[in-house]
Amino acid sequence: MARVVVDVMLKPEILDPQGQAVANALPRLGVTEVASVRIGKRIELEFTGEPDLEKAREIADKLLANTVIESFDVRVEK
Amino acid sequence: MARVVVDVMLKPEILDPQGQAVANALPRLGVTEVASVRIGKRIELEFTGEPDLEKAREIADKLLANTVIESFDVRVEK
Repeated sequence: MARVVVDVMLKPEILDPQGQAVANALPRLGVTEVASVRIGKRIELEFTGEPDLEKAREIADKLLANTVIESFDVRVEK
Repeated sequence: MARVVVDVMLKPEILDPQGQAVANALPRLGVTEVASVRIGKRIELEFTGEPDLEKAREIADKLLANTVIESFDVRVEK
C-alpha cells in the first residue's frame, strides 16, 4: 500500500473565515506570536499498488478541490 | 515568517463517511487502484518570529483537534 497525500487550500486571495475565527481566538489563549491561520483539507489516498501521482492529480482536480477558489498539492508520503 | 503545519486526521478506528463517499465515487471515474480515502484538516499557522512547535501543539490540542476522535501531527514547513 502506498499513500498519496493531497493538500487542498483556499487560494491566498480567498477569505478564510474559519481560519480567521481561530486566529481571533488565539490572543484569548495567550498566544500572540501567530499572525495568521489558514484552514484547508488533507486527503489521504491509499493506492493498492504503486502510487500514481498523475491519477491522484486527476482525482484531486475532479473530486477533491474546487479549482475556482482552491489550489491543491499532491505528494507521495514515505 | 515561519509556517507551522498542523495535520488533523480522524483516528483510524473512527468511521470517515466523507472519505468513504469519495472512495465510492472513484470507480465511476474509472479509478480502481485506490483502496481507501481519509479526509482530514490541514491548518497553516504563520508565526511572526521563530516557529514554536510546542506552542503549535498546545493550539492544536486546545482549538484545532478533538482528541477524542482525532489525532494531530505538527511540523515546521521549510
